[in-house]
Amino acid sequence: MRWLRCLCGPWLRRGLCAALKAQHRPLSGSVALEADVNSFVSRTKTCGELRSVHIGQEVTLCGWIQYQRQGQFVILRDFQGLTQIVIPQDAAASHVKKTLCDVPVESVVKVTGTVVSRPPGQTNPNMPTGDIEVKVETAEVLNSCKKLPFEMKDFTKKNEALRMQYRYLDMRSAQMQYNLRLRSQMVMKMREYLCNYYGFVDVETPTLFKKTPGGAKEFVVPSREAGKFYSLPQSPQQFKQLLMVGGLDRYFQVARCYRDEGSKPDRQPEFTQVDIEMSFVDQPGIQALIEGLLQYSWPLEKGPINTPFPSISYNEALSVYGTDKPDTRFAMKITDVSDVLRNVQMEFLENHLSEPHGTIRAICIPQGAKYLHDKDLSRLNEMTKFQFNQVLLPLILRPDVRLKSRLAKFLNESKKLELLKAVQANVDDVVVLAAGEQEKVCLTLGKVRLEAAELLEARGLPLRKPSAFHFLWVVDFPLFLQKEESPSELESAHHPFTAPHPSDEHLLYTEPSKVRGQHYDLVLNGSEIGGGSIRIHNAKQQCFVLENVLKEDTKPLAHLLEALDSGAPPHGGIALGLDRLICLIVGAESIRDVIAFPKSFKGRDLMSNAPDDVSPEELKPYHIQVSWPSAETQK
Amino acid sequence: MRWLRCLCGPWLRRGLCAALKAQHRPLSGSVALEADVNSFVSRTKTCGELRSVHIGQEVTLCGWIQYQRQGQFVILRDFQGLTQIVIPQDAAASHVKKTLCDVPVESVVKVTGTVVSRPPGQTNPNMPTGDIEVKVETAEVLNSCKKLPFEMKDFTKKNEALRMQYRYLDMRSAQMQYNLRLRSQMVMKMREYLCNYYGFVDVETPTLFKKTPGGAKEFVVPSREAGKFYSLPQSPQQFKQLLMVGGLDRYFQVARCYRDEGSKPDRQPEFTQVDIEMSFVDQPGIQALIEGLLQYSWPLEKGPINTPFPSISYNEALSVYGTDKPDTRFAMKITDVSDVLRNVQMEFLENHLSEPHGTIRAICIPQGAKYLHDKDLSRLNEMTKFQFNQVLLPLILRPDVRLKSRLAKFLNESKKLELLKAVQANVDDVVVLAAGEQEKVCLTLGKVRLEAAELLEARGLPLRKPSAFHFLWVVDFPLFLQKEESPSELESAHHPFTAPHPSDEHLLYTEPSKVRGQHYDLVLNGSEIGGGSIRIHNAKQQCFVLENVLKEDTKPLAHLLEALDSGAPPHGGIALGLDRLICLIVGAESIRDVIAFPKSFKGRDLMSNAPDDVSPEELKPYHIQVSWPSAETQK
Repeated sequence: MRWLRCLCGPWLRRGLCAALKAQHRPLSGSVALEADVNSFVSRTKTCGELRSVHIGQEVTLCGWIQYQRQGQFVILRDFQGLTQIVIPQDAAASHVKKTLCDVPVESVVKVTGTVVSRPPGQTNPNMPTGDIEVKVETAEVLNSCKKLPFEMKDFTKKNEALRMQYRYLDMRSAQMQYNLRLRSQMVMKMREYLCNYYGFVDVETPTLFKKTPGGAKEFVVPSREAGKFYSLPQSPQQFKQLLMVGGLDRYFQVARCYRDEGSKPDRQPEFTQVDIEMSFVDQPGIQALIEGLLQYSWPLEKGPINTPFPSISYNEALSVYGTDKPDTRFAMKITDVSDVLRNVQMEFLENHLSEPHGTIRAICIPQGAKYLHDKDLSRLNEMTKFQFNQVLLPLILRPDVRLKSRLAKFLNESKKLELLKAVQANVDDVVVLAAGEQEKVCLTLGKVRLEAAELLEARGLPLRKPSAFHFLWVVDFPLFLQKEESPSELESAHHPFTAPHPSDEHLLYTEPSKVRGQHYDLVLNGSEIGGGSIRIHNAKQQCFVLENVLKEDTKPLAHLLEALDSGAPPHGGIALGLDRLICLIVGAESIRDVIAFPKSFKGRDLMSNAPDDVSPEELKPYHIQVSWPSAETQK
Repeated sequence: MRWLRCLCGPWLRRGLCAALKAQHRPLSGSVALEADVNSFVSRTKTCGELRSVHIGQEVTLCGWIQYQRQGQFVILRDFQGLTQIVIPQDAAASHVKKTLCDVPVESVVKVTGTVVSRPPGQTNPNMPTGDIEVKVETAEVLNSCKKLPFEMKDFTKKNEALRMQYRYLDMRSAQMQYNLRLRSQMVMKMREYLCNYYGFVDVETPTLFKKTPGGAKEFVVPSREAGKFYSLPQSPQQFKQLLMVGGLDRYFQVARCYRDEGSKPDRQPEFTQVDIEMSFVDQPGIQALIEGLLQYSWPLEKGPINTPFPSISYNEALSVYGTDKPDTRFAMKITDVSDVLRNVQMEFLENHLSEPHGTIRAICIPQGAKYLHDKDLSRLNEMTKFQFNQVLLPLILRPDVRLKSRLAKFLNESKKLELLKAVQANVDDVVVLAAGEQEKVCLTLGKVRLEAAELLEARGLPLRKPSAFHFLWVVDFPLFLQKEESPSELESAHHPFTAPHPSDEHLLYTEPSKVRGQHYDLVLNGSEIGGGSIRIHNAKQQCFVLENVLKEDTKPLAHLLEALDSGAPPHGGIALGLDRLICLIVGAESIRDVIAFPKSFKGRDLMSNAPDDVSPEELKPYHIQVSWPSAETQK
């Protein structure tokens, strides 16, 4: 556990009133203001703020005892840092000494004393308060700490379940304090941008709503009316659109959303999205708004981000990166080598090329011959066989420029050079080929690309700077996709309210599968952190999509259709996944590290043990009873 | 429906970037900034902002058609106001005329034109844009409105159910726009105060939590584990305390809370509280924080509020106002007249005075003889008989200074004068007496006081200025109350985490019923808008309260007790009821008028028809089934 040595980084300190420093729209005459964290309370200073300028001042500090040393020093900690307390060794101070040295670590004390300079040679340049110490005059134990179930400094080495069970101890770590404070301040700056600069209205929408037909991932909440249930919505989608119909014009909300996916490793049953909707806007308008939002709220200490963000079409993302959320921090792009290898007499390639949409694509793993072992390549091949039923064909480019590959004997020298040039391979690189149906080949190589990057980095070849933040818009998604279980039917690629691309609108009525939607995803370092669309504002068009394309019952959406028919303005919006965004910014391993009280991957609160039993008596007002699985199977 | 004539009052406009104007802590060099509401969208101006200075400019407006007049004028509306569009009457503009005049009202259009001065005599001083009009050049219908189920201008005259069913239309009214925008901006200013000025951390706490034992008002949420339920918490109480144990130091959250009370007139199953907790704080600290918070976030247009707020003890509030949430906008205080009437030979009074805690109290209704009818007094008497089993004894002070009362014949002239002096009665006043057990008498007269004030005001005697905001702290509540159903047992007056008053702490172990709690309620104009306390931070004391005083099982709170034992700092907090606060500020009749999508008093969403049926198939993953009432009664 990294204990608070420099908890408040420059951004955290400076950021506190950066409302007044308007990075995005510089204001002349603005004033940087430190938050006053010592008002209303019994301390006069925090444990992180004392410096040489305070020498001679009498101060009162409140905090936790971090260490006790030789009956002479105590290190006191609070949310802002550490201060060394020095205990006079004379008889007059024996009571204070007893108070501070007999109490267990992690107890809470209040000390009053004088800020003094540390003796020469004893300053600590690694500690922001390392030039001073506080010579204690009075000390009071505010609350004694019992023996903890572990040494605090070993805590994060313990398993995550223990951290979650004792979240209130885990939270005392510098890392958790940093994560939660950064989250708070970044959201605050987003609010300033939206509310103060651009006139957005923060509207709270209901979380007790109506179940979406087929909404299998929605928690249900029984009401006191027998058989009637609320549901916890996955997003405020309907409400935000209705707000636009209601003339709210610009809406945002830091919205709690719910998704019941059972056990998933890095998902939470409740999560937060920054939810935005505007009237009279188009896709570039939303994109510019979001770029400005992120730029304005971006933590100073993470370096500037550049706008506008680059943009890529869904098709290009798939064909170049093999995914709709490319990690563009490194190249290793997918290259089409079909033409190069078209006349090579290798049966494997020939067969695949002759398939419908048959293609041969390749990625070049830089320095792969040096950093990857044969068994890595076999493992990659097994993975793609398992996941995509797709065989890889690796080419290892030896230091002597000879190719080690099953393919080698089919290539003459000029073909070989042509291939290596096409994929920009150098000595010691590994080229991985895949052949077959285009989409599958690209998805396969996209997966190989990411796995290979992980492997190279694990072996010591850095590909991605930890401090690099690569934003990317992915646009021009198809509006509909074939249903996996029934390819003749279509389903919405995102949701049924997405408007068709203006140039494809005529196809909606003839070839809906060819229509692109006005949907945009925002990707950061290969993770989707947001998505949105321009919505359908025409009731007839919405009805056509629901009834004729998606073959859905419109009745449960009657209120929305009626609203669109009552003077709905053109509108669009976006939602950013706040947990994921903060997780990427602080470089946490899991979104659980940026949530104060997360659930385990099984959806449990390990501290309080929720969910828990509820007596039949307590269920009675809700007219439900438990169907115990044994009883269910007996039926 | 008050249509947007002057929707954006001075506060709304000026307030937008009042982040930068720091009322509370004036900043030199701060800059007032208008929110830029025309960025990213297809309009260049809103319908509320055009003035004479814009004459000659070409502008593009987007909005709803409010009126069409004589094929010559169209009034266009958006969230910010109204602008008159003038249609040239020459042939060249016939297409534009057709577009704007044939489309139904409430359709959405985009017009481009030039701002011109209104002809002399046609300016409208009641309209902020009344000096100008826009001479239209091009017009486009963005969305046509079907025939609405009612005339928009009659809409608020319709019943509330219709307003809620068509909330997206109701929201277009000036009043709803004002309410929602004021709410958003006031919350934003609260966030600035807490986060930017005082270093509070905005932490989102879970809403899927564990059921509180006996928490009958908590919605349950079935999980995929058979028989295991989450519950939706009534407040983040446990989490905020755990955050303090975790060293977060200063927490706030605009928190969604849930309370299932079945049908209650002015309650909502989900509501919002501004939730605050601090470490190392005492009661005056929290009070000063909240006074500053309200002062800073208070809408400018509602006039200044003065701090500190007055404070009254629970006992005094009961005896002077007959309630723990006094409306101090008017006097009519309760006076103890026991001593004056002690020796008056009226059996009714004598009997009641001899009861345990027997007393005679009175209120004086100013001008009651003029404004109240006999049947009003009878109605009041019936009400108190029904609610408190308490008879009233009215004295009507006639213009000739004679008393009309059953009591009159028992009073000699000097007693009469003494009584009138004690209650400060004047000619034409009505004095209402009640006799009996002190608390009941005070509650009775407290109720009479409020009813009488309503009556006087309904009859035209203004007692309370609509623009008056009277804040009041109520303090020194008892920590425990006798259980109504079993007076020998105690229950928490507020919740079991409230710390005892320091001077009463020793009584906790001997006479707990005499202990006052460190609890404070904040009252505004007779409504409770907040409450909080200093919490118990000592595990032993908390355990004692739970086990020995309240006789509760501590097991469900084991995690909290363990947390208190792990270095919990002294801490305290408060929660403000945001819906009620905003409701009082805007002067709305119901909290439903300050919530975008409220539920009906039966807890239904009348727009989408939630709660709704859910199929047994959809309930299966949650291992629950509906117990239909008929089946239940057959058992």
